[in-house]
Amino acid sequence: MNKRLNFDSLWYGCDAATMVNGQYSVIEDAAIGVHDGRIAWIGPQAELPACDAQQQHDFHGGWVTPGLVDCHTHLVFGGNRAHEFEQRLNGMSYQAIAQRGGGIAASVQATRQETPDQLLASAARRLKSLMCDGVTTLEIKSGYGLSTEHEAKMLEVAHRLAEQYPVDIRTTCLAAHAVPPEYQGHTDAYIDYLCDELLPEIAQRELADAVDAFCETIAFSPAQVERYFRTAQSFGMPVKLHAEQLSSLGGATLAARFQALSADHLEFMTETDVAAMRESGTVAVLLPGAYFTLKETQRPPVDLLRRYQVPMAVATDINPGTSPVLSLRLMMNMACTLFGLTPEETLAATTIHAAQALGLAESHGQLSVGKVADFVCWDVASPGELSYWLGGDLLKTRVKRGVISHVDAN
Amino acid sequence: MNKRLNFDSLWYGCDAATMVNGQYSVIEDAAIGVHDGRIAWIGPQAELPACDAQQQHDFHGGWVTPGLVDCHTHLVFGGNRAHEFEQRLNGMSYQAIAQRGGGIAASVQATRQETPDQLLASAARRLKSLMCDGVTTLEIKSGYGLSTEHEAKMLEVAHRLAEQYPVDIRTTCLAAHAVPPEYQGHTDAYIDYLCDELLPEIAQRELADAVDAFCETIAFSPAQVERYFRTAQSFGMPVKLHAEQLSSLGGATLAARFQALSADHLEFMTETDVAAMRESGTVAVLLPGAYFTLKETQRPPVDLLRRYQVPMAVATDINPGTSPVLSLRLMMNMACTLFGLTPEETLAATTIHAAQALGLAESHGQLSVGKVADFVCWDVASPGELSYWLGGDLLKTRVKRGVISHVDAN
Ligand SMILES: [Zn+2]
Ligand SMILES: [Zn+2]
Repeated sequence: MNKRLNFDSLWYGCDAATMVNGQYSVIEDAAIGVHDGRIAWIGPQAELPACDAQQQHDFHGGWVTPGLVDCHTHLVFGGNRAHEFEQRLNGMSYQAIAQRGGGIAASVQATRQETPDQLLASAARRLKSLMCDGVTTLEIKSGYGLSTEHEAKMLEVAHRLAEQYPVDIRTTCLAAHAVPPEYQGHTDAYIDYLCDELLPEIAQRELADAVDAFCETIAFSPAQVERYFRTAQSFGMPVKLHAEQLSSLGGATLAARFQALSADHLEFMTETDVAAMRESGTVAVLLPGAYFTLKETQRPPVDLLRRYQVPMAVATDINPGTSPVLSLRLMMNMACTLFGLTPEETLAATTIHAAQALGLAESHGQLSVGKVADFVCWDVASPGELSYWLGGDLLKTRVKRGVISHVDAN
Repeated sequence: MNKRLNFDSLWYGCDAATMVNGQYSVIEDAAIGVHDGRIAWIGPQAELPACDAQQQHDFHGGWVTPGLVDCHTHLVFGGNRAHEFEQRLNGMSYQAIAQRGGGIAASVQATRQETPDQLLASAARRLKSLMCDGVTTLEIKSGYGLSTEHEAKMLEVAHRLAEQYPVDIRTTCLAAHAVPPEYQGHTDAYIDYLCDELLPEIAQRELADAVDAFCETIAFSPAQVERYFRTAQSFGMPVKLHAEQLSSLGGATLAARFQALSADHLEFMTETDVAAMRESGTVAVLLPGAYFTLKETQRPPVDLLRRYQVPMAVATDINPGTSPVLSLRLMMNMACTLFGLTPEETLAATTIHAAQALGLAESHGQLSVGKVADFVCWDVASPGELSYWLGGDLLKTRVKRGVISHVDAN
């Protein structure tokens, strides 16, 4: 005797790009049955078995994809740096701006000064822009506090956002983002502080899902990052790394040695790095918004990443200095136009591979039975349109854990 | 005895970048009085004279600017070319795509096949994306019909959009966009047809406010454009020109000789062109979306345009092949990042100078007494933020001729 399927909700009337195996893996005229916030059945509607559904929803056309996953953001920060953007375009040098307290120092100062409620309010506006654009899961890094108190404040704001909005948030402690003013010229002492005081407290209070650092000549050396990573791992926290953005320091290989979830930026990575990441299963996160804003010319080695089958993710890197980006879909276009990814690779890069970069490969980023019922119906005739259009509102319906979530951007 | 001012509506609670003289021309704590759809008073709220207002609206913060003007769009077209975008990224050459009937030929075929209602529906979706982004006036070109019947059909759709949506639309006949299949190899015969049949009918039916052509080695020669322009002028229609996008043919100088409203693209223009445009009062319309999408490297000569005080406008150039752009604000960022315009120049380029490019300098594009009451209140702390953020929804309130217009993107 067949057991009749029982769904909380049933969704149909669209084609689906399920992104299983990192490909479109299309189901035409798809149906999706949801139970307890998870996908209980998915396939061609014609093959839907006998079932009961408390709610039914006809999309009346369009394409369904997994909800988008933005796996690298600095969403929470004080102030913004539009003023510096304008100064630079009016001819002021980076150096002159830095001498006046600009650059990342300005964001650190503003972030430290703002209350949690102020930080929450501005981050919530940015979060809503991302959600309106189809994001259902995102990562939020700290990194403008640079002290236990203020890094914890940033991470707590990220947790509050997760409570208040229908979105899954993974938090990352990026205390090794820059050297704060009180440690200028004493970078190793700052790393000591992170290892001896900050990381233990962040770990003990369970404020971060992962730990991140900025490995660069203008930030932290591989040796410093290694010390910080070893401490993170002693607390059982997975790591990830900003690496090879402006020069080749072997940061990606270092990250791979620590089984990092991801290494991010990667414009200057070498074949050795790529091979190491393949071995460790580390995701390559590409950030075309920063590449575009900084007018970089060295593109990440996409062909090497393909040859070694290193999964590629794409993210906004939203931050006030180098990537004031409020749309993940725009990054999909830029990944195609600037880096030569295909629209199919780009959609995998913002769903299944982005979920993997967050350690969520088992639950998020694809449409298959058992995964969370996070999906978006788009008003498009083909999934390639998601990468083709620059700007605009293509979203018809955003479903988070089986529930339609309307987002008002303002 | 003072006459008490009488407004239909009074707006306050914001700062204003009026864009008078092409500069921010800031009014802090501004108030705007509107009568009969025009600005009847504007100034610091503290200086507001005694008045009556039927309606009052407190913006509660933010910045007001003139409604944005998108002065170069191909908004109406059949189908889209996401498929070609995907083919190219999967390695197919432009040549192979063209041999399969792709490129502009595909858009011509799709546009000819679609009914006016079909064209209206897809253009309306794109129009709503622009309106959500702050556009209150735009230009729409024909150019995918390439016969009297189908060019007229496109222009009629543009006129219907103007009737149905709270937006001012200027229409442009771009019949000299490409040589249609039935005239392949007979470009001069096509120009004859345009001059003898098409333009007279478009003029007689008053379907277009201006006439445009594509002057390029792959399209029409300066001599052919000149013949076409002379016919347009004989009907009293102002001209504009796609010029110097891919090579230097002297098209901008030709346009200036015909007192063109604008010359557009201009990457390869020379100092001679710039000087000629200055003499004729022709606006330079820069189109960073096509530059970005085509991965061009030759930037328009912004410094020369500044030196000669040629007004610069910026537009989306929305079209299915080289600029699938649905956000004018994104073009403001790209004009800064790719072309080095300042945020102030960029805002002038999408308000006062864009209005000038449409022959609307007397009525549109700035906040001053007598101009149409088209303005937008943005949720920003400085007008530079409009160019700084990539994507996102910054619009608080869009006012068209003194009336709040809510736009639902879907
Ligand atoms: Zn980052
Ligand atoms: Zn154009």
